[in-house]
Amino acid sequence: MRAAVLKKAPGKLEIEQVKTTPVGPQEVLVRLAASGLCHSDLHYIEGKYDVAMWGGFPAILGHEAAGIVEEVGDNVAGFKKGDHVIACSSIYCGRCRQCISGNPALCENKQSLQRAPTERRRLESLDGKPISQFGNISGFAECILVHQNALVKIVDEMPLDRAAIIGCGVSTGLGAVFRTARVEPGSTVAVIGCGGIGLNTIQGARLAGAANIIAIDTLDLKLEAARKFGATEVVNASKVDPVKEVIRITNGGVDYSFEAIGLKKTAEQAFQMLRKGATATIIGMVPRDQKIELDGFELLSERKIQGSIMGSIRFPIDIPAYVTMYLQGRLKLDELITGRIALDQINEGYAELKAGKAIRTIIVF
Amino acid sequence: MRAAVLKKAPGKLEIEQVKTTPVGPQEVLVRLAASGLCHSDLHYIEGKYDVAMWGGFPAILGHEAAGIVEEVGDNVAGFKKGDHVIACSSIYCGRCRQCISGNPALCENKQSLQRAPTERRRLESLDGKPISQFGNISGFAECILVHQNALVKIVDEMPLDRAAIIGCGVSTGLGAVFRTARVEPGSTVAVIGCGGIGLNTIQGARLAGAANIIAIDTLDLKLEAARKFGATEVVNASKVDPVKEVIRITNGGVDYSFEAIGLKKTAEQAFQMLRKGATATIIGMVPRDQKIELDGFELLSERKIQGSIMGSIRFPIDIPAYVTMYLQGRLKLDELITGRIALDQINEGYAELKAGKAIRTIIVF
Repeated sequence: MRAAVLKKAPGKLEIEQVKTTPVGPQEVLVRLAASGLCHSDLHYIEGKYDVAMWGGFPAILGHEAAGIVEEVGDNVAGFKKGDHVIACSSIYCGRCRQCISGNPALCENKQSLQRAPTERRRLESLDGKPISQFGNISGFAECILVHQNALVKIVDEMPLDRAAIIGCGVSTGLGAVFRTARVEPGSTVAVIGCGGIGLNTIQGARLAGAANIIAIDTLDLKLEAARKFGATEVVNASKVDPVKEVIRITNGGVDYSFEAIGLKKTAEQAFQMLRKGATATIIGMVPRDQKIELDGFELLSERKIQGSIMGSIRFPIDIPAYVTMYLQGRLKLDELITGRIALDQINEGYAELKAGKAIRTIIVF
Repeated sequence: MRAAVLKKAPGKLEIEQVKTTPVGPQEVLVRLAASGLCHSDLHYIEGKYDVAMWGGFPAILGHEAAGIVEEVGDNVAGFKKGDHVIACSSIYCGRCRQCISGNPALCENKQSLQRAPTERRRLESLDGKPISQFGNISGFAECILVHQNALVKIVDEMPLDRAAIIGCGVSTGLGAVFRTARVEPGSTVAVIGCGGIGLNTIQGARLAGAANIIAIDTLDLKLEAARKFGATEVVNASKVDPVKEVIRITNGGVDYSFEAIGLKKTAEQAFQMLRKGATATIIGMVPRDQKIELDGFELLSERKIQGSIMGSIRFPIDIPAYVTMYLQGRLKLDELITGRIALDQINEGYAELKAGKAIRTIIVF
């Protein structure tokens, strides 16, 4: 099969012929229909994050994929050849204290779902070097060979290209609202950053029945998109102080704020625009060298700040629900896909994403 | 009546003869039996916090008091002469969005329960200067004249000296566990700081059924007291790194941590000793010039940090429950009172508190 391989970072993705090894117990081979370009892969391509935790170079990135089951291994329950599936990097062991407390996104035992170090890797070596399976998926390839707990079965009516993006970007935004923050109907919500995650956070707030949804960005173009996804007010942070403006609009601060960029400054703003007793949820990855600074007095008035990873998703439960919402016409996915490319256009796709020109670009196989 | 008056800060409290004005509508005059020396008053005596928000000097501090109703004004419901009551500075209007959302401790309208600026103050002027009523109570006096929403009726069997300390210190610790963090039975808990608030947080965790309760302090004497209040493990932070030690004991971090000192460093430690998905609750008042710094990656693993003020108390509901627990022998109060003094020994009482020699000293009238 063909795959986009990262051999060093910073670097470019190179299209190579690679092979999967035979399907093992609890594993499923899936022929992909589509694979999304997520911003977090870009951090690895640029060398901001280290692929060492996934086994080093060469590595196949990509973790937002959907396709059709080609083959199942021994002890696989619930999947058979021909099933439509979405892959999710939020794999779960089902046995650790997080999994059995309803928090599989925080699974402490994800590595137990990789093959044992003494076994062959799932991907054959390339030029004598073992290939690392990024996010337990490696979705920038025509096929993926994954543990069954990295997959969820979906109904055949769901178009697979739109299904692909549910696995990461959509789930992260919706889940932050539904699962991490648990926004109630009638709430006031502010969302900082109107990229792919931010737009899904906004539509999550709409679906959750928030009364006021304030979208914040520095680009009017993104704020226009935010309105289409459910923002009831928009604030251009390049023109006004977003904290003061949100406090003015809401007469004291929002019930829930979300940060969907990953910057120290915007994470702090998310906290500062809360009313007493309200909650800020940080979805973006703030770099380690920049600490988020909080005022103890603002905290004392029972303000809260929390992180959200993968929308606190329980993906075999939540992803089928999102698919249902799409098929009912309540969840916008078509509008999120701003480009469809072939696998060998992947570097151009990432250049566009970096330039802020795309919401979501997907590779269609 | 006699009262301890603060005329400037930093300063000493001076015993003066003062008078209350006639009891107005919705007001209650209470003859105090006991009044606790709380650490937060000390901040005002030392000039670290400004009494300006309460109306300036001269002011009568004190906000942890219990006594017997002497007289009730018009439109007072639920109190009559002879009732035993606890005063609570967490007064509530009952009409704002916080009060009607179950969060009266965050009432946005507390000032509406003071007399109108055009009316006489509740306390007669001293040397021609109006006296400020600190915390809507001014408990360092033989009598208090307060709004009925600053009081809760308790059963006559409850000793009034032990009742006094429930109004602030006990409620703050227990409420942080029961109401702010909502600790579940079987949880692992760490409490940083084993002063009055910390000991009540520890006994709150015990009453809530926490399985492991780790007390942290720098003084062995305080750690011994912590064991008596329910700590199952103790860590002397002057000898070992408390973050590493808690992570070692719990094999990955606690479910709930509490900071009961009010320092930047310990607030950050409370966050750092959490397992993924766990919650730090900051009870202490961290000074405004010291920001609490959080690592974005630790936050991303769904760790949470929140403030707790007055234990998120709904005091007409929660205080009678604490009284019941004491009368049942489940809540330790006698052990908290390390000294009983007369009103004119108040400066010596605060000197002892500052020196860390006392858990709770109470004035007995």
